[in-house]
Amino acid sequence: MPKSVAEIAAYVAGEVIGDSQTVITGLASLESVRAGELVYAETERHLAHALASAATTVLVGPGIVAEGKVSIRVQNPKLAFARLLEWFEPEPRVAEGIHATAIIHPSVQLGENVAVGPYTVIEANVRLGKNCQIGAGCYLGPGVTLGDDCVLFPRVTIYRNVEIGARVRIHAGAVIGSDGFGYVFAQEKYWKFPQRGTVRLGDDVELGANVTIDRGALDATIIGHGCKLDNLVHVAHNVTIGEHTVIAAQTGISGSCTVGNYVLAGGQVGIADHCHIEDHAVLGAQAGIPTGKRIRRGQTVWGTPARPLAEFKKQYAYFARLAELAERLQALEKKIGTSRKLA
Amino acid sequence: MPKSVAEIAAYVAGEVIGDSQTVITGLASLESVRAGELVYAETERHLAHALASAATTVLVGPGIVAEGKVSIRVQNPKLAFARLLEWFEPEPRVAEGIHATAIIHPSVQLGENVAVGPYTVIEANVRLGKNCQIGAGCYLGPGVTLGDDCVLFPRVTIYRNVEIGARVRIHAGAVIGSDGFGYVFAQEKYWKFPQRGTVRLGDDVELGANVTIDRGALDATIIGHGCKLDNLVHVAHNVTIGEHTVIAAQTGISGSCTVGNYVLAGGQVGIADHCHIEDHAVLGAQAGIPTGKRIRRGQTVWGTPARPLAEFKKQYAYFARLAELAERLQALEKKIGTSRKLA
Amino acid sequence: MPKSVAEIAAYVAGEVIGDSQTVITGLASLESVRAGELVYAETERHLAHALASAATTVLVGPGIVAEGKVSIRVQNPKLAFARLLEWFEPEPRVAEGIHATAIIHPSVQLGENVAVGPYTVIEANVRLGKNCQIGAGCYLGPGVTLGDDCVLFPRVTIYRNVEIGARVRIHAGAVIGSDGFGYVFAQEKYWKFPQRGTVRLGDDVELGANVTIDRGALDATIIGHGCKLDNLVHVAHNVTIGEHTVIAAQTGISGSCTVGNYVLAGGQVGIADHCHIEDHAVLGAQAGIPTGKRIRRGQTVWGTPARPLAEFKKQYAYFARLAELAERLQALEKKIGTSRKLA
Repeated sequence: MPKSVAEIAAYVAGEVIGDSQTVITGLASLESVRAGELVYAETERHLAHALASAATTVLVGPGIVAEGKVSIRVQNPKLAFARLLEWFEPEPRVAEGIHATAIIHPSVQLGENVAVGPYTVIEANVRLGKNCQIGAGCYLGPGVTLGDDCVLFPRVTIYRNVEIGARVRIHAGAVIGSDGFGYVFAQEKYWKFPQRGTVRLGDDVELGANVTIDRGALDATIIGHGCKLDNLVHVAHNVTIGEHTVIAAQTGISGSCTVGNYVLAGGQVGIADHCHIEDHAVLGAQAGIPTGKRIRRGQTVWGTPARPLAEFKKQYAYFARLAELAERLQALEKKIGTSRKLA
Repeated sequence: MPKSVAEIAAYVAGEVIGDSQTVITGLASLESVRAGELVYAETERHLAHALASAATTVLVGPGIVAEGKVSIRVQNPKLAFARLLEWFEPEPRVAEGIHATAIIHPSVQLGENVAVGPYTVIEANVRLGKNCQIGAGCYLGPGVTLGDDCVLFPRVTIYRNVEIGARVRIHAGAVIGSDGFGYVFAQEKYWKFPQRGTVRLGDDVELGANVTIDRGALDATIIGHGCKLDNLVHVAHNVTIGEHTVIAAQTGISGSCTVGNYVLAGGQVGIADHCHIEDHAVLGAQAGIPTGKRIRRGQTVWGTPARPLAEFKKQYAYFARLAELAERLQALEKKIGTSRKLA
Repeated sequence: MPKSVAEIAAYVAGEVIGDSQTVITGLASLESVRAGELVYAETERHLAHALASAATTVLVGPGIVAEGKVSIRVQNPKLAFARLLEWFEPEPRVAEGIHATAIIHPSVQLGENVAVGPYTVIEANVRLGKNCQIGAGCYLGPGVTLGDDCVLFPRVTIYRNVEIGARVRIHAGAVIGSDGFGYVFAQEKYWKFPQRGTVRLGDDVELGANVTIDRGALDATIIGHGCKLDNLVHVAHNVTIGEHTVIAAQTGISGSCTVGNYVLAGGQVGIADHCHIEDHAVLGAQAGIPTGKRIRRGQTVWGTPARPLAEFKKQYAYFARLAELAERLQALEKKIGTSRKLA
C-alpha cells in the first residue's frame, strides 16, 4: 500500500522538503533500499550513505536536508521511522479468537477481545486483560494475571501467581516464575529451600526468547515498567530491577540484587548476588560484578572484577605493555649490576 | 492456617524460649515480615534485623536468644525454616490425574499415582515411577525412565532413552538428551558424528529452567545424586558430574569433562573440554578453565585462565597498580640517566 | 545386527589387516569397549588405548596397524566410524506420519513423506520439503519454508516467514525468528523499533537446544550452509554468518556483525555489535570482541578485549609474574636510594 510523502509527513508531523506527491512504496534499510523507498538518517554517516543510495526519500533530523532526495524533516528520524514501519506493516497477530484446543479453566477471567492460540493451557483463576494475544502452546499457571494488550509468543511458560502489567511482550521459550536457586547445605547434602514468592513485571516490559526469571523465595522478583531484556537473560530470585533498564543477551543477575532505573547492561554481564547497580549505570559487555558490590549512579564499568571504564582502559593499556616494562626493568638492573634472568 | 509456636517447635524439634501459645500466621522474610509472622536468623546481622522487625517469633541457632521476641531454638534455623515453609504452604501440584489430552503410548508403564498434564506426549516404552508429576506440554521420548516422585514442570523435553532417578525436579524449558556437539571435519565441511549415547541423572537432582544436557556420543553424560543446576546451564556430551555438586546459572561444561563431588561452580563459568574438576573445588563466577586443566581437590579458582584465588587476588592487586609501577620505573630510569618516554 | 569385518570394510572402503570374517557386534568408545566391538583410533594415544582395550577391531588411518587386533585401514578413521555408527544404529525418527492432533493450515504445502508429530501447529502458507520430520509440539509460523530432509526436534518455535534450507536439524527449545533487540530511546523511555526482517538458514545447518536466532530489523539475519551452532547460542538481528562456521555453546553474536566462512568460536564468546570476523578466524572460549572490531582472516584471538593468542599468552605470562616485577623494581629503588613502600 504505497503512500505519498505528504501522507507520511502528516503521520509523523514532519516537514517536507521536495515533492510531497512523491509515492513511497515501502521502508527499507540503508543496505537494501531500492528506488521508491524511504530510509532514515540519524547521523552524518547515515546521511552520506542515504544520499549515495537508491532511496527516494529520507527521514532526517532538524536542520538537515538530504540533497537530491525528497526529505522529511522530523525531531527524531529513527523514532518516526519506527512508527512508520508499524503503520506500513503492522505486526501480524499471534492468535485470532480462542482456539478450540485451548484449555481454559472455567474460573479464568478473559478481558474483551482476548485471543488464545492452539494447545495453550490456562489454569484456574488466571486473569487476562483486554486484547491480550496468547500464542500457541503457552502455559499460564494458576493465578497468573496479565494486564491489557499483552503479547505472549508461542511456547511461553508462566508459573503460578506471576503478575504481569500491561503491554508486556514475552518471546517464545521464556520461563517466568521458575524456582529460585535456593538450598540449605546440611548433613552432607543440599535441601530444597522452597520458593514461595512470585514474579512481578511492570508495564511495557519486553522479554526475549528463552529468558528465565525466577520467582522470589518468600517475596517477589520485580522488573519495573519499560524494562527490555534480550534473549537468554537470567534473573535470579529476589532481584529488583527498576524502570526503563535495558539488559542485553545472556546477562545473568544473581539473587537479591537491586538494579536501578535506566541502567544499561551489555551482553554476557554477570552480576553476583547482593549487588546494587544504581540508576543510569552502564555495565560493559562481559563485565563481572563481584558479590555485594555497589556500582554508583551513572558509572560505566568494565572487566572482571568490574572497575570504572577509564581505569580499566588505563590498566589495560599498561597490561598490553608489560613486556616492555619488564625489559626496561631488566635493562636498569643490568646497568646497576643487579641483573637477573627473567625467569 | 495459623499454628502455635508449640506446634511449630514440635515440628522442627526446637526449644521454645517465650510463650509457646503464641500464634503464628505465616512465615516471612526479614524484609517483609509483619506482626504474627515467623522469621529465621542465621547470622548476627540477621538477628539484629529480626529484632528490629515486626516479627513475632524468630527461629535461632544453638545458644541464641532473640530478646523481646519468642525464640525457637534449633540446630539449623534455615533448614528448619525451609521445612516449615513446605508445611505451611505445600508446593502446588504440577498435574492432577492423567489429562484426557495426554498422549501416552500403550507400552508406557505408569507407576501408582502418576499425574500427566494436558498436551504432554509420552512415547513408547517409557517407565515412570510412582507419584511422578509431569506438567503440561512435556515430551518424553521413547525408552525414557523416571524414578519415583519426580516433578517435570511444563514444557520439559526429554529425548529417547534418558534415565532419570528418583525425586528429580526439572524446570520448564529444559532439554535433556539433545545431540552432543560432535562433527568430523573432512573435505571442507563438517560431517555429523552421530550421538548415540544417553544421559543419566541420579536421585534428587534439580535442573533449572532452559537448562540443556546433551547425550553422550557413545556412552552417557552423567549427573550424580543430589546435583543442583541453575537456569540456562549447559552440560556437553560425555561429561561426568559427581554427587552434590552445585552449578550456578549460565555455566557451561564442555565435552568429556569430569566434575567431582561437592564442587561449587559460580555463574557463567566456562569449563573447556577434557578438564578435571576434583571434589570440593570452587570455581568463581565467570572463571574460565582451559582445555585439559585439572583443578585440585578443594581448590578455589577465579579468572580466565583460572588460577588459585589467592594468586588471582595478588596478581589483580598489582594489576590495579600498574600505572604506579610504570611511573616508578620511569623515575628510576631518569635518575640513572636512561630515561625513555613511556610510548 | 552383527556384521563381519569384511562387510564393514566394504562399507567404508577400508583395507582389512587380519581376519576379515571376524564378527563385530557393535561400535564403542575407547572407554567402554567390550570384546567383539569396534573402536577407532585417530592418534597415537588413541591407538595405545585401543591396543590395551578389549576391542576386537580398530579403525585406523593410513599406514597404521593395530598389533594384536583386526585392523581396518581407512583414510579418515573418525569419519568412517561416524558413517558406521549411522549404519549400525540409524537415528530414530522424530515423527511418523501426520499425527491426528497436528494442526496444519489448509494452505500448507507438504512435500512427500513429511511427518508431523502430535500437537504441532503449522500456520498458513508454510512449505515443507520432502521427508521433513517435525517433532511434537513445534510451532511453524505463517510463511515459513523448510527445504528437504529437515529434522525439527520437539518444541522448536519458528516465527513467520523464516526460510530454512535442506537437511537442517534444529534441536528442542530453539527459537528462530524472534524479534531483534531494537528500541529507540526518546522521551525518557524505550520505543519498540519494529522488527520486520526475517531469518534465512542455509543447507546442512544444525542448531542446538535452546538456541535463539533473532529476525533482522528490516533485512534478514543469515546463517550460511553447513554452520553448526551449539546449545544456547544467541545470534542477534542482522548478523550474517558465512558457511561452515562452528560456534560452541553459549556464545553470543550481537547485532549487525558479519562472521565469515570456517570460523571457529569457542564457548561463551561474546561478539559486540558491528564486528567483522573474517574467514578461518578462531575465537578462544570466553573471548570478548569489542564493538566494531575486525578479526583478520585466520587469526586466533583470546581474552577480553580479544587480542592475538601469542600476544595474550605473552602478556598473561608477565601478568602472572607481576609480583616479582614489583619486588625487583623495589629492590632497584632501594639500591639507588629512592625506596618507597609498595602502597
